[in-house]
Amino acid sequence: MKIEKVAVVGTGVIGNGWIARMLAQGYDVVATDPAEGAEGRMRKAVDQSWPFVEALGLAEGASKDRLTFTKDLAEAVQEADFIQENVPEVEELKQMVLQNIDRHAKPDALIGSSTSGIMPSELQANMNHPERFVVAHPFHPVYILPLVEVVPGKQTSTENVERARKFYEGMNMSVLLVRHEIEGHIADRLIEAIWRESLHIVNEGIATTEEVDKAFTHGAGMRYAQYGPFLTFHLAGGEGGMRHMLKQFGPALKKPWTKLEAPELTDELYDKVVSGCEAQSNGMSMSELDQNRNEFLIKLYDLVQEYWPQEQKKTKV
Amino acid sequence: MKIEKVAVVGTGVIGNGWIARMLAQGYDVVATDPAEGAEGRMRKAVDQSWPFVEALGLAEGASKDRLTFTKDLAEAVQEADFIQENVPEVEELKQMVLQNIDRHAKPDALIGSSTSGIMPSELQANMNHPERFVVAHPFHPVYILPLVEVVPGKQTSTENVERARKFYEGMNMSVLLVRHEIEGHIADRLIEAIWRESLHIVNEGIATTEEVDKAFTHGAGMRYAQYGPFLTFHLAGGEGGMRHMLKQFGPALKKPWTKLEAPELTDELYDKVVSGCEAQSNGMSMSELDQNRNEFLIKLYDLVQEYWPQEQKKTKV
Repeated sequence: MKIEKVAVVGTGVIGNGWIARMLAQGYDVVATDPAEGAEGRMRKAVDQSWPFVEALGLAEGASKDRLTFTKDLAEAVQEADFIQENVPEVEELKQMVLQNIDRHAKPDALIGSSTSGIMPSELQANMNHPERFVVAHPFHPVYILPLVEVVPGKQTSTENVERARKFYEGMNMSVLLVRHEIEGHIADRLIEAIWRESLHIVNEGIATTEEVDKAFTHGAGMRYAQYGPFLTFHLAGGEGGMRHMLKQFGPALKKPWTKLEAPELTDELYDKVVSGCEAQSNGMSMSELDQNRNEFLIKLYDLVQEYWPQEQKKTKV
Repeated sequence: MKIEKVAVVGTGVIGNGWIARMLAQGYDVVATDPAEGAEGRMRKAVDQSWPFVEALGLAEGASKDRLTFTKDLAEAVQEADFIQENVPEVEELKQMVLQNIDRHAKPDALIGSSTSGIMPSELQANMNHPERFVVAHPFHPVYILPLVEVVPGKQTSTENVERARKFYEGMNMSVLLVRHEIEGHIADRLIEAIWRESLHIVNEGIATTEEVDKAFTHGAGMRYAQYGPFLTFHLAGGEGGMRHMLKQFGPALKKPWTKLEAPELTDELYDKVVSGCEAQSNGMSMSELDQNRNEFLIKLYDLVQEYWPQEQKKTKV
């Protein structure tokens, strides 16, 4: 079945982000939300994001005119080939809405939920057609950031995971297939760890929110747009890479450097981490990775200085 | 006292990064390291980083020829106005080396330690002139990334904190003055939280190192080069900003989304976080911040696609 018509259920920040991305990719989109004034807020949000989706490139025939709105969920989903759910992060509410979607949608329509933390097996438990459900968790702003975590539940069929993957990839997204469901999936576990530690630092009076943010944006944050936590450590180890880093900083895992208790650095974990880093380097040598990072950082530094809020102030005031 | 001559003690990845930055800023640099072959490795590292410091801009008179090396620590530090220590992260070793530096340096020479986690009051405890010591923790690659965390110990004089701050700012660095010392300072507490959670995810078999990295680089990592954890959440809240986010995601702090226990979201913490975000927005409205982020992300996305290792593979193989 070709996906031509999509429905977006729930028009908050994330739902509206999906709408802009889907319209930009040339789909007919039906949006639904029971809240008073939702349609106006949604159309305003889509208008605001439109110059950015245009800058990224519109698909042929893509148009904001292909967006319709209805307060009636059943009407919104009944003809859709794909339905993206984005209601508030309350499990009971999501389950109720998903059951409604499931009841009114075509039996072979795919359903994705944007939940940031709830596991798919729980959300699909009471559906009539649970095999067509996946978690598909995007990142704000959804119309720019490419990542979507696709997480199948116990009852999701392999075929439908593939269909969902193709759908999101077809929208210029980078699909991270999460094979083992877990609360918070993968990315939000990392984001939540940063968030909690940041709250601890502010709570203990060590630094202000602005100082915590600067500690990140002017250092590690610049690196993380390109290489993730593992490859970053791999490179910080010099020629010895991750092997050297685990030897040098392994003992620090025992220290109270964060409120988070670390796992035991077993031989098995050591091997997974070292061989993982070597594999993901994709045949690039340490010095090629290093060169690549430096070229990127020089250009990024040039770019980001214009956009740090502190610099904005200097320019504008 | 004007700072003209600097000494760098310990020539690993971080020490060599400092050397390149200091040379680029027009200082005379004396490097020292007792290890066999250290000078050759250091000169090679400086050569490799030189095109990048050139791209960022050299100070007048800056030259690699103004770098000398000696194995003798006393000789290296005796005429220096500023000494940067970068020996391995072992407290006893650092204390011993710092005592040696303290003994042989001019009494008013400033001393900075690159320690990533040890508190300055511990490192300065046995110095004859502890008042001239600060922690000055940089980020790899030191010759590109602008951040340095400057942390005074209990015995550091206010005047010397100011002198150190000016020295680092004079080298085009962004100084984050950490007023309350804590293990891991600020940035490494966040980095360590990400690192530990990443290890847990790999340890539990949820994802590979490459998948964890991708979960970061293609989503949150792109945002963190510009806005830190607080401003990112502030913006994800739509018009309601951090107030809305704390209401919506405050309850998630109770959930096991990471291995890290969260602090209690008291009224006091709530106020600190909300007013902090409002202050650091520097008079920009929510929609200005939003616009600013989108403009940045579009340009970053264009840039980073050339530099993600996965994309390198596609191009090169």
